[in-house]
Amino acid sequence: MMDDIFIGGALDLDTDERHWIPQSDDVAFKPLVLSVSQGYYVNILRVRASGILSRHRHNGPVHALTLRGKWHYLEHDWVATAGDYAFEPPGETHTLVVPEDVTEMATLFHVTGGYVYVDPYGKPLGYEDVFTKLENVRQHYERIGLGASYADRFLR
Amino acid sequence: MMDDIFIGGALDLDTDERHWIPQSDDVAFKPLVLSVSQGYYVNILRVRASGILSRHRHNGPVHALTLRGKWHYLEHDWVATAGDYAFEPPGETHTLVVPEDVTEMATLFHVTGGYVYVDPYGKPLGYEDVFTKLENVRQHYERIGLGASYADRFLR
Repeated sequence: MMDDIFIGGALDLDTDERHWIPQSDDVAFKPLVLSVSQGYYVNILRVRASGILSRHRHNGPVHALTLRGKWHYLEHDWVATAGDYAFEPPGETHTLVVPEDVTEMATLFHVTGGYVYVDPYGKPLGYEDVFTKLENVRQHYERIGLGASYADRFLR
Repeated sequence: MMDDIFIGGALDLDTDERHWIPQSDDVAFKPLVLSVSQGYYVNILRVRASGILSRHRHNGPVHALTLRGKWHYLEHDWVATAGDYAFEPPGETHTLVVPEDVTEMATLFHVTGGYVYVDPYGKPLGYEDVFTKLENVRQHYERIGLGASYADRFLR
């Protein structure tokens, strides 16, 4: 049997900045579980910018629990704010937008499988899955001096 | 492609009591997703009692995000409080305890597969999975006059 994982204060968004893995200047994530055995990951995404973040197509289900700020998809009518929950079905392509009046949004995403970044015509531009996430996490911890193996605590 | 699900104020624990499905006098749950196609469910469990709640063995992974109160497993050292996150591995048998000084605990559980209630010797006493949950939900909505089909909004 694999080990459990316990992360005290996981939902504390204003925690030690070293826990946040930068993806770009305005986007970072905090990993909770990186399941390489079952092909999914659970993380908190933090965006400190507004506008269109990305358009992508999922091949597995996604569960989103909004913790702070506000966001929506161009393809849906709902707007997610703190405390809201969304299930996104496998096969969906959507375009993530953070409204102009939002300075920070944070959402817990449970992502099964992966997704492909696409242009408006569906042409692939890139991809993400638990393995690309793990690579980001390892590089970050190595860079800040904790060592790549610090990522192992999230690996299952 | 199946439809998305959006639940505004999903984390609001003090919502309309009709949203809570009673399991016993002191235990109720609020469904978010009942995935009969993939064999998992996401729900908020609310316990208004202290002591040993149940001992059970999981055949799939579980993700727990504590929202209110405090609880722990006899088999682990950690104690979960609001904002804490736990991953429970497939194959684990554990005994859920709510400490005596807690009047209410609420936790978001994402349960893949199911679990079997067992006695201290591992003898099976009962079971739960997305289908037993769905049956509870249907019966509740029928009983309070919303009709069993009210459960369909959570079904995927």
